[in-house]
This record gives sequence, C-alpha cells and structure tokens, in this order.
Amino acid sequence: MSHFVVAVHCGAGYHSVQKEDAYVKLCKSTCLKVYHLLEKGRGAVECVTEAVKSLEDSLLTNAGVGSSLNINGCVECDACIMEGKKLVFGAVGAISGVKNPVEVSATLVNRQLGDKLSLGRLHPSVLVGDGAKQWAEENGIKTLETRHLITDEARKTYQSHKRKLDIVNERDSSKKMKLTEQREDKTEESCDVEEEEKIQDTVGAIVMDTSGNIATAVSSGGISLKQSGRLGPAATYGAGCWAYNQRPGKPGVGTSTSGSGEHIMKTLLARESALSIQQEDNASLGLSNCYKNNFLESEFLEEEDDKLAGVLALKQNEEDTVEVLWGHTTDSMCVGYMSSSLKKPKVVMSRLPEGGIPGKSFTMSGVSI
Amino acid sequence: MSHFVVAVHCGAGYHSVQKEDAYVKLCKSTCLKVYHLLEKGRGAVECVTEAVKSLEDSLLTNAGVGSSLNINGCVECDACIMEGKKLVFGAVGAISGVKNPVEVSATLVNRQLGDKLSLGRLHPSVLVGDGAKQWAEENGIKTLETRHLITDEARKTYQSHKRKLDIVNERDSSKKMKLTEQREDKTEESCDVEEEEKIQDTVGAIVMDTSGNIATAVSSGGISLKQSGRLGPAATYGAGCWAYNQRPGKPGVGTSTSGSGEHIMKTLLARESALSIQQEDNASLGLSNCYKNNFLESEFLEEEDDKLAGVLALKQNEEDTVEVLWGHTTDSMCVGYMSSSLKKPKVVMSRLPEGGIPGKSFTMSGVSI
Repeated sequence: MSHFVVAVHCGAGYHSVQKEDAYVKLCKSTCLKVYHLLEKGRGAVECVTEAVKSLEDSLLTNAGVGSSLNINGCVECDACIMEGKKLVFGAVGAISGVKNPVEVSATLVNRQLGDKLSLGRLHPSVLVGDGAKQWAEENGIKTLETRHLITDEARKTYQSHKRKLDIVNERDSSKKMKLTEQREDKTEESCDVEEEEKIQDTVGAIVMDTSGNIATAVSSGGISLKQSGRLGPAATYGAGCWAYNQRPGKPGVGTSTSGSGEHIMKTLLARESALSIQQEDNASLGLSNCYKNNFLESEFLEEEDDKLAGVLALKQNEEDTVEVLWGHTTDSMCVGYMSSSLKKPKVVMSRLPEGGIPGKSFTMSGVSI
Repeated sequence: MSHFVVAVHCGAGYHSVQKEDAYVKLCKSTCLKVYHLLEKGRGAVECVTEAVKSLEDSLLTNAGVGSSLNINGCVECDACIMEGKKLVFGAVGAISGVKNPVEVSATLVNRQLGDKLSLGRLHPSVLVGDGAKQWAEENGIKTLETRHLITDEARKTYQSHKRKLDIVNERDSSKKMKLTEQREDKTEESCDVEEEEKIQDTVGAIVMDTSGNIATAVSSGGISLKQSGRLGPAATYGAGCWAYNQRPGKPGVGTSTSGSGEHIMKTLLARESALSIQQEDNASLGLSNCYKNNFLESEFLEEEDDKLAGVLALKQNEEDTVEVLWGHTTDSMCVGYMSSSLKKPKVVMSRLPEGGIPGKSFTMSGVSI
C-alpha cells in the first residue's frame, strides 16, 4: 500500500496547561479515526472532512458545537476545504444551524468535481448565510436549531463578555452626555476581549491519501462577540487552507492555518506559506521565509502590534517522503499526526521557547515520515 | 495641484452594438462626476465609491439597481473596496436591500482606518448576508425593500431563465421515472444561461487622488439564477480589486476585474495582475504575463474550456506619469478614464480583434496620462 498521512491541529493561540491533556487526547483520537479510513483506501476529501468533523464535534474547540457566540448570542460558522488534484475550493461562511459546517464545504467541493448544473450553470464555490443553510438542506445535510450548538461554557463566556461590553457602551454614552469627564475610567483596559480570548481555536487538518491526493480543511466559530455576518479566514480562499498535489517539477503541499483572522486574511497565509514551501528544497526554510517576509515583516500588517498565526503544513517530496511541519507566533499550537509508516498518533503541544514574545517571535518544528 | 486620475469599467463580457452608446455615456458621466470631486481634493476612497455608486445606479449594469436575480427571484449583491495606503480591504457579500452595496464596503474600509472597537475588538473586513444588512443599518446606511432594486428587464430575464430551468428540471425528473428514454432531448443545449448571459456586468473603478493615494472597487449582482448566498469575486479579497500606493522601490498600482466569477476567484486575478504589473518596468508586459501564465495557462483553470475575464489597471511610475491599461479575453470591455492632464473623459469600447476567440484570445491596450 502507498504511503498516507493525516495531520491535524486544534488551534494556534493559548492553550492552558490544565486543558493540555484534553487537547492531546482529541488530536490523538482524530488521527486514529482518520488513519483507519485512509488504511481502507478512502479519499483525501472524505478523510479531511472526517478529521475536521471530529474536531468540530468536540466541545473543547471553537468550531461546530461549542463555537464562540456572536454579538447577537448566536453561532455562525466558517469552514473550507481545498483539494489538490483539480485545485477545487469549497467554503461556507457565517452559516447557522449546521452541526458540521465542514460537511457543507465537502459537498460544495464534490459538486464542483462532478457535472455542471443544468443550463450550463456553474456550481458555487463559496456560500454564505441563510443561502448556505438552504443549500445544505437541499443537498441532504441535516440542519438543526442553532441553540443545539451552544454549550454552557460558550453561553457563560458570552454573558461575561456582553456584560463588559454593555458597561463600556454605557460609559461611552454617558461620557458623551457629560462633556467634562471627572476621572479616567479604566474599565475598558481591564477587560479586553481580544486579550482574554487568546485561544484561537480554528481547527484544521491535512490529509494525503494512498493515491497521493492532498486535501486540507479548517473550521471556526470565529471570534467572540463578532458582528453577525462576519466572514473569517476559514471561509476565505487562500487564507484558511491550501492544497496542491505533486506535479512534474513541483512538490505536493498542503497547509492549514489558525490564529488572528484579519492577519491571516490580509496575508493570504495558507496560499503564501504553501507557495513558499514549494519554492525551497528545504520545507522548513520555505515556511520560515514566509513567516519572516510575508507575515512578521509584511507591509500588510504594518499597523498591527502583534501578529498571531500558526500554520500546519505537509510537503510531499519527490522521493516519496513526506514532511509534516508547523510554525506559530502564538503562545502555543497543538498538532497531531499519524501515517502509514508511523502507526501511532503523535501529538505535540508546541509552545514558544522561553523568552519568546507572542505576536513577535516565531517557532517551528517538523518531522519527516 | 498634483496629478489625479479616474478610470472606470462597466464590465467585461459581451456588449451589443445597440447598447454601446448607452455604456459609453455612462462611463463618460461617471468619469466627469469623479473628476470634479478629485479636482476639489477629495480622497481616493470617497471618489472610487462615488464612481461605483454612479455605475450601480444605472439600470444598464448588473450592479445595485438592475442586478440579475438569483434563483429565488431576489437581488443579492457583492461589492468591495481596497485602499493602497494602509492596504485595507472592505467587502460585502450576498447583501440584500441596500441601494449602493459599495457604500457599505466604503464604510467598512473607513471603520478599519479609524479607531479599534471597544474591548480591543477589531472591525470586520468582510460582512455577508443579513448580518451585513444589519451592520449597514446600524452604521447609518439606508436600507430599502429588495423589490426596489428589481427592474422590469431583470424580472423578464429571470422569468425567461426560470421557465427554461423548470422545463429542464421537469424533463430530468421524468427521465428518472422513465428509464428507457425514447429520444435525446435538445432542450438543455438550446437554452444555456451561461451562453445567453455573456454580459458579465461587474462594474469597477480605480482612482488616484491628488495625494497619490490609490483606491479600487468593484460591484456586482452576480450571475442570473445563482444560488442564494453565493459569494463572487466582488466580495473576495485579491479577486475583485487590488490597490497599492507607491512605496520606495515599488510602483503604485490598482486593478479592478470583471468576468467569469469562478475564474477570477480561483486565479486571484486582481492581486496577481497587480503584482505582475509591479514586477515589470513595462506595465503592458506585466499585464500580458499575468494573463498568459496566471490565467489562460493557469493550472487552476485547466478544466475550463473558456477563460473569461477583463482587468482594468493603473500603474503609477516613479517619474509621476500614470498608465491606464486594460486587457480582456471576453468579447468586449467598456472602459473610461479622465485625469488632471486629460480634461475630457475618454471611453473605449474594446473588442477582441477579428478572428479572436472569446475565452481563448487576449487583447490589451492602454495610455500614459
């Protein structure tokens, strides 16, 4: 049987030591599940979908059930898949009432790989909002009431954030009324949602099946208190994931990102890191070049103090070895992998080395399997 | 006063000779309107917004009022703006009930250029569906009932397409019932929506203001009978438009695209053509290189028989001359431009030269002003 690989991540951000075991367990069980599918010869798109479904179904992650709530207290999810053979991309954005958003993305990819629609119409590649939900229903994907996706923890976090927001808003409006402010109110500084919400739980996976097909995916509930309708990198072509099968003179590559949405979108991090890895014989050099030139020193992020993202990548070399590598500027990134040559799942909770500064420092590691 | 330029397009696709005068008139009046704003020293984002608003307000174009109707008989629009100084992008996708979608994109850009939200939250860059409409309302943009955006012509086209679709669907379902089909039905081949709908009326504009700031925009109602929620290139970062102000060692550049949505998205045509133009001393060489390598011969479009897109571009050279250029593989593209040195609007209805094959041949032209 040919070589096959699965690699997953459950977010680049900040993972507390207390929850570390739970994250590790989730990555392990996901790798094992997908390993058995790959062993049976199942295709890359199906396997990467199953990997992300497993991560979405965990209450731990900000994807599928357990997603962060938006400003209206609802769950709206983004998810995308790219496959490397025909280079087809499918994504859903701001979709509500679907248990596994990545399943809708997989269906969008599969439809595009099939026949055209009647009257010469093309299948859509990206669907958003209510239209996406309607399409999912019409295409046999079960929908459910959004409240079933809301966990107690997500509701508690929402209520806490919302209270802080209401305090700040009230203060701001009273400020406007009383033009002479007596004291500098420190409320805002002490309850920064972005600060508290350092866990960027966008989850993702990369699969290479026994035929050498590469598929990648990500899924995310987005940031807490986000505007309804906000589209993040997990629904953006080139930002969330990238896949490209080996072709003459070009190595196969797959990437899956996680971190601060706007930073990943503006730098099209999945695509740029994949192209950079393809350009260098040494995959690690390719990934670190991208981080230096197209992320930490990118002119597109000049205004940002901290640049936060992680990339999980796979490179298929011509001599049929595969490298799995990961790098991040976030405090931590949790990565798992397994392959036909490596019959047990390995999980790494990668953390910035001592002295490293999240948003400014970069760390990287990888294996050849 | 410093040099300033406005360039607009009202679509790359097929423009009938009968309607040519109307398109030319629209481009002229739009250029004149924006010229007067630029003359008064107004900024690039404001001016590019006014340009696209003028194109959206025309019943001729598939943008704003007069947009194509989706499968549910509704108008859902995409629009985006990019500005070249801080490299900020704002887009709305699948938005209903807004007269000028580009105005919402402009507000998204301006918010990102301003202060952060309370609690350290970032302003959104891309908003879709109902959430986008809600945000527009909250940010002072007037909404209206969608029916006010539907013209008689759009309704007629919809009814005609929908009838054909119903015939095909009925035939398909009766085919499924009668497994032995007596004759080959030619209905589908004779009413190809994509064939009929060769006019890809995504409109757009590029502006360079008196301070040398570049801003670009596009707006589109999308394809006829599209799935509700479908996101097109006019809401996709890197696909619809690109803007980059002159920086040391790098020329300023702006691009605005039009054509077949999926082709433009998969090749990130706005971004790739802008980068290609920046890489060459000769702007035309840059644009034609991009068309050859990243569009007509792109591995991302290998499956497509016809590759249909137009690009309007502006390049700001170091010696303070500006080139406006346009290229397309579609039958025609209507382009207008005007500048501080060129006090009358010029409009070109560019057509493929005789013998050129839409989707396979490329034509290009431009001026230095």
